[in-house]
Amino acid sequence: MTLAINIQLPEWLASTAAENESRLFTSTEEKMRFTIGLANQSVTERTGGPFGATVFDEETNTLISVGVNAVVTQGLSIAHAETLAIALAQKKLGSFDLAQNLQKRYSLYTSGQPCIMCFGVIWWSGITKLVSAATAEDIEQITGFREGPLPQNWAEMLENRDGLPNLTVLRETLREEACEVLRMYAASGQPVYNAGSTRPGTKKS
Amino acid sequence: MTLAINIQLPEWLASTAAENESRLFTSTEEKMRFTIGLANQSVTERTGGPFGATVFDEETNTLISVGVNAVVTQGLSIAHAETLAIALAQKKLGSFDLAQNLQKRYSLYTSGQPCIMCFGVIWWSGITKLVSAATAEDIEQITGFREGPLPQNWAEMLENRDGLPNLTVLRETLREEACEVLRMYAASGQPVYNAGSTRPGTKKS
Repeated sequence: MTLAINIQLPEWLASTAAENESRLFTSTEEKMRFTIGLANQSVTERTGGPFGATVFDEETNTLISVGVNAVVTQGLSIAHAETLAIALAQKKLGSFDLAQNLQKRYSLYTSGQPCIMCFGVIWWSGITKLVSAATAEDIEQITGFREGPLPQNWAEMLENRDGLPNLTVLRETLREEACEVLRMYAASGQPVYNAGSTRPGTKKS
Repeated sequence: MTLAINIQLPEWLASTAAENESRLFTSTEEKMRFTIGLANQSVTERTGGPFGATVFDEETNTLISVGVNAVVTQGLSIAHAETLAIALAQKKLGSFDLAQNLQKRYSLYTSGQPCIMCFGVIWWSGITKLVSAATAEDIEQITGFREGPLPQNWAEMLENRDGLPNLTVLRETLREEACEVLRMYAASGQPVYNAGSTRPGTKKS
């Protein structure tokens, strides 16, 4: 019985991250364009779903970590872009709580609105700013990927967490550029897992 | 920039798991008692929060994987018992979807009701049966650990997921035995992270 879990992100992602490690990102749009670029490269490299995420240090405006969807290649349903970017940031910064030192504020950028799982991951992560591009409806309608039962007021819930640091949510930043990547994925014929099923014991959607 | 995430579970857990690898578990209570035993050992070994989880093959009634809370030791907010047990099961069985082969049904046992994050993790995991012991109220009131904004009807939501395989939820199995472990943890003075904070920028609960 193995008691270690090893998650490996794609080689191209390591290169892209290294090339941008000391780059200064001067605007919200620049950070999001880079994040959508990861989603784009994920499609062209064919290493996973059309989703990218990043964590930035909002004080220095530098890149802390990156993530892309790696569910199929890693054989792990938790391997969503947001979850991997957050885990890499926590490992890099040495804390399970990115808000531990509130002099520093860490933001999560994501090319697509978080699903029900990533909503919960963000909840406990210590991220204090969330910026997203494509909406849940964009993702579900263009690709067929599911988002799960995210509460209608998910952004307000994140902004008003009892007993946890304030979190700011900014939505639909460069939404159309993110939708373009979703359309590219849909056209590429790459797999859409969990998109519904005709297996026995499955409810119709 | 590191682009691998390695999560290591405690040594004692590997031994306990190995000792029970070919054991036949003949009832729901026996599976849950073993799961609560992991939570108990987690407290006495002082390797994390008072939570244990397991995945069982419901056809052969054998143990597939185990998990305990490892948030503090691993420096990762995703390292909840349920999430780790599910990830280990997926790695062992070679699929991100434990319901891929519906001839096999895999159950998740957890000593405490899943939090908002683990609810989302379970959603996409392919688990088709969930058995829990202590309730969210037990956990929050006895230990101070938070559960997050789990919907009131979370169990019904899991049981009625559109387009995903049927999932059965069984609650409060050996609840009192799980509460005993929570009380032991509270009395031990071990850390309760995320239990509320007086840090600047934090809302009062």
